[in-house]
Amino acid sequence: MPESPRRTLKLGAVLLGVGGPGQHHTWLDPQIPTDASVDVRWYIARAQEAEAAKFDHVFIVDSQFITPDSPNHYLSRLEPLTLLSAIAVHTEHIGLVGTLTTSYNEPFNVARRLASLDHISGGRAGWNVVTSGDAGTAGNYSRDAHFDYATRYGRALEHVRVAQGLWDSYEADALPRDRERREFLDPTKLHALHHTGEHFRVVGPLNLERTPQGQPVIFQAGDSEEGRDLGAAIADAIFTHAQTLEQAVAFRTELRERAAAKGRDPQNVLIVPGIHPIIAETDEEARARQDAALGARSFEKALAELGRPFGWHDFSQYDLDAPFPSVAAAGALSFRTQAEGITRLAIEKGWTLRQVVQHQLDAGRSPFVGSPLTVADEIQRWFEAGGFDGVNITVNAPGDFARFTDQVLPILRERGVVRSDYESTTLRGNLGLPVPENRYTAARPEEAKAASLVP
Amino acid sequence: MPESPRRTLKLGAVLLGVGGPGQHHTWLDPQIPTDASVDVRWYIARAQEAEAAKFDHVFIVDSQFITPDSPNHYLSRLEPLTLLSAIAVHTEHIGLVGTLTTSYNEPFNVARRLASLDHISGGRAGWNVVTSGDAGTAGNYSRDAHFDYATRYGRALEHVRVAQGLWDSYEADALPRDRERREFLDPTKLHALHHTGEHFRVVGPLNLERTPQGQPVIFQAGDSEEGRDLGAAIADAIFTHAQTLEQAVAFRTELRERAAAKGRDPQNVLIVPGIHPIIAETDEEARARQDAALGARSFEKALAELGRPFGWHDFSQYDLDAPFPSVAAAGALSFRTQAEGITRLAIEKGWTLRQVVQHQLDAGRSPFVGSPLTVADEIQRWFEAGGFDGVNITVNAPGDFARFTDQVLPILRERGVVRSDYESTTLRGNLGLPVPENRYTAARPEEAKAASLVP
Ligand SMILES: Cc1cc2nc3c(=O)[nH]c(=O)nc-3n(C[C@H](O)[C@H](O)[C@H](O)COP(=O)(O)O)c2cc1C
Ligand SMILES: Cc1cc2nc3c(=O)[nH]c(=O)nc-3n(C[C@H](O)[C@H](O)[C@H](O)COP(=O)(O)O)c2cc1C
Repeated sequence: MPESPRRTLKLGAVLLGVGGPGQHHTWLDPQIPTDASVDVRWYIARAQEAEAAKFDHVFIVDSQFITPDSPNHYLSRLEPLTLLSAIAVHTEHIGLVGTLTTSYNEPFNVARRLASLDHISGGRAGWNVVTSGDAGTAGNYSRDAHFDYATRYGRALEHVRVAQGLWDSYEADALPRDRERREFLDPTKLHALHHTGEHFRVVGPLNLERTPQGQPVIFQAGDSEEGRDLGAAIADAIFTHAQTLEQAVAFRTELRERAAAKGRDPQNVLIVPGIHPIIAETDEEARARQDAALGARSFEKALAELGRPFGWHDFSQYDLDAPFPSVAAAGALSFRTQAEGITRLAIEKGWTLRQVVQHQLDAGRSPFVGSPLTVADEIQRWFEAGGFDGVNITVNAPGDFARFTDQVLPILRERGVVRSDYESTTLRGNLGLPVPENRYTAARPEEAKAASLVP
Repeated sequence: MPESPRRTLKLGAVLLGVGGPGQHHTWLDPQIPTDASVDVRWYIARAQEAEAAKFDHVFIVDSQFITPDSPNHYLSRLEPLTLLSAIAVHTEHIGLVGTLTTSYNEPFNVARRLASLDHISGGRAGWNVVTSGDAGTAGNYSRDAHFDYATRYGRALEHVRVAQGLWDSYEADALPRDRERREFLDPTKLHALHHTGEHFRVVGPLNLERTPQGQPVIFQAGDSEEGRDLGAAIADAIFTHAQTLEQAVAFRTELRERAAAKGRDPQNVLIVPGIHPIIAETDEEARARQDAALGARSFEKALAELGRPFGWHDFSQYDLDAPFPSVAAAGALSFRTQAEGITRLAIEKGWTLRQVVQHQLDAGRSPFVGSPLTVADEIQRWFEAGGFDGVNITVNAPGDFARFTDQVLPILRERGVVRSDYESTTLRGNLGLPVPENRYTAARPEEAKAASLVP
């Protein structure tokens, strides 16, 4: 397929409250109110800062299960879409990406809430499709156990397909609302879905008209075979992690190939890892800041949180200096890929439990550390080498974020890596993604179609 | 029980988009944009007007099923809680009451979304608990048929009890967030629910701390035996209709008795019917306006919409001038009470189908029609006779609403029937309702409790 001219680097801001995953130390930062995770004004202010810096989107993670060992940010926080709707009416341009799980929601409700957000925001809604990694979530939804991987991801695929079908319920010109002709609805352009699948049966139609983006933008993350397959099938953009440039290029290449194998244009599948730039006046100072931040973390908390990918397995029961226990199976229904990865590495390296916890503490080490010039150079190098199409920056301390927007971004703008202003009113437009054609309009003869597409 | 001093009349504003139930003619009103039901700015402006008039709350109705015959407002509209969150951050005092069905939602998700709205709004969230009257809703949620009445209401009761349990997950002082002591959480004040019931099993805890209102305010509506019983058990406020003062007094008396029989203080169960005041300079003019509005309705549309309580039964198949067909059973899973009521009346009166449709068209006739003084007198008379504790005013045309706030309310304020300003920062406070004590705090010894209640 011929490559279209390369897009600019896309920018997302991960809005955590205080003390997100692997960042339980951040709640001690005097710049961040300790109750930020339930303070709508805090989120709105951060989103406005990201918008002033012309970011493409803000992103809200989610889970529906806690234990007292959960990271601080998880213990008490606002539901993502309720929060994003409040942010929507205090911003104008920035995309609003919320996490909703396909495992414990009905597709009719999900389709409706996202379409509502798309209308409220004038075309800025995005959906981070997840399947819920915490196996304990099942207990909050009348189930004995979480779905196994095949079911989790099978259900996710069908869930997204149903939502997409519901979003097409109304063609663009289905509601003429013509007072003179007394015609509110053109019933020939309102379509029931009549979906019958393995996991869902949904008649439709959705009780909400076509949204400004046609369909909200779909984001997804998942490292397993099943997770990558889902992303390649449905995602407009894929969230991931990136530890080295080689890994990043390999992941992006693989996902683009998978998408192409499914008949999709890989240009329309953006790879967007989360990165954590640490910026100071000099490289040395930045490295020292990173070391100080890593050093401030609590070993006990890290030991408890190590349990999460393993279905909140209690590692405090083991001898810290004995070889890492073989309990990967405990994570079979949770974050299986992560649990298996940690276990494999521990066995390969012959690590003790203490060494594994120490490794987890160090895993927060960022490849983007240094002066503004160093960080800008490194981001550009990864982008140009095909490591990513965009990056998600974690916004915790406003000061760290300001260093990125005020000192790194101007360099990347100057070099044409990042655009200098919004180019569209919708998230889809700013990401350079095509508007999906309504399936019923597409099926009409050409003349009827041309007429339908006017509004 | 000794009566505490009578509260002032409570005021709610029903925010419909355009052409709500029985009001399909309103979309022709040039004052109302035809796409109001999907325009967040329209809703925000109406809520701000209601707040300027010191209303206690705005209220958003809901359903999750449409046919091309549905009222215009139902065909395409925003999901209630997504909408209310946007309104929350553009208002300061007014309560935000959203409809969520217990039949097609999980209690964990409902509890979380309402608690999030309560945090975002600083204590102004309310939940209109419904069970979904449209039997066709089942088809959008992987079910062959809607729940029967006993199940619908049994599930509703358990659903609300689970939500209330989840709202108590954190005691008020469970999150000290004390940096010096490195104490974010006091785990002894975080409680799992471990609920196991007929319809739900929910372990908990909720991942959101106690809200500003302690618990969001619970509204409910339901005319059947089962519906009244649920209201008496769980509602802080009960929505209803009121056609005559005698009916209103009877309904309020009965519901208060039911609540008392369940051991509740009837003072804490407010009865709030929807009313539709029609105001003009003189009584004659107001009556003429009502006749004009009723005359503008379409017989065909009313015939189609008559089907709704009967599970969208198609009445166009019958002879208009033959006796009303005996099809009450078609409504057994829908709005049963309404379907039975219409059928009973038709048989009693010996009406034809045409006469029933005409009666439905006339049923919109309001008991509150006249000059501002006439309407104020009538509202005061009903209030003082015990017909209601508050009223829900349907806001469609901004002009009609302004006539009520600018011309009727000053008279009621002058007479002390309506308060002149907000008395609390929360909806619960403005309605004069007590804050429910957290069940775990309540179970503590007195000294521990006193300490807990400080924040
Ligand atoms: C950047 C990133 C963000 C994620 N955000 C969430 C989230 O908000 N909620 C969630 O339940 N899972 C989240 N996940 C987890 C995945 O969606 C997936 O459930 C998990 O990785 C386990 O599946 P896997 O084995 O396929 O990776 C995220 C993963 C990544 C890489
Ligand atoms: C004022 C009022 C408002 C209502 N709002 C809704 C609503 O928004 N959504 C809904 O599904 N039902 C709504 N209902 C219907 C009831 O909650 C109930 O489902 C319906 O009346 C059928 O049950 P019943 O036979 O017990 O009345 C409302 C009823 C009344 C009286």
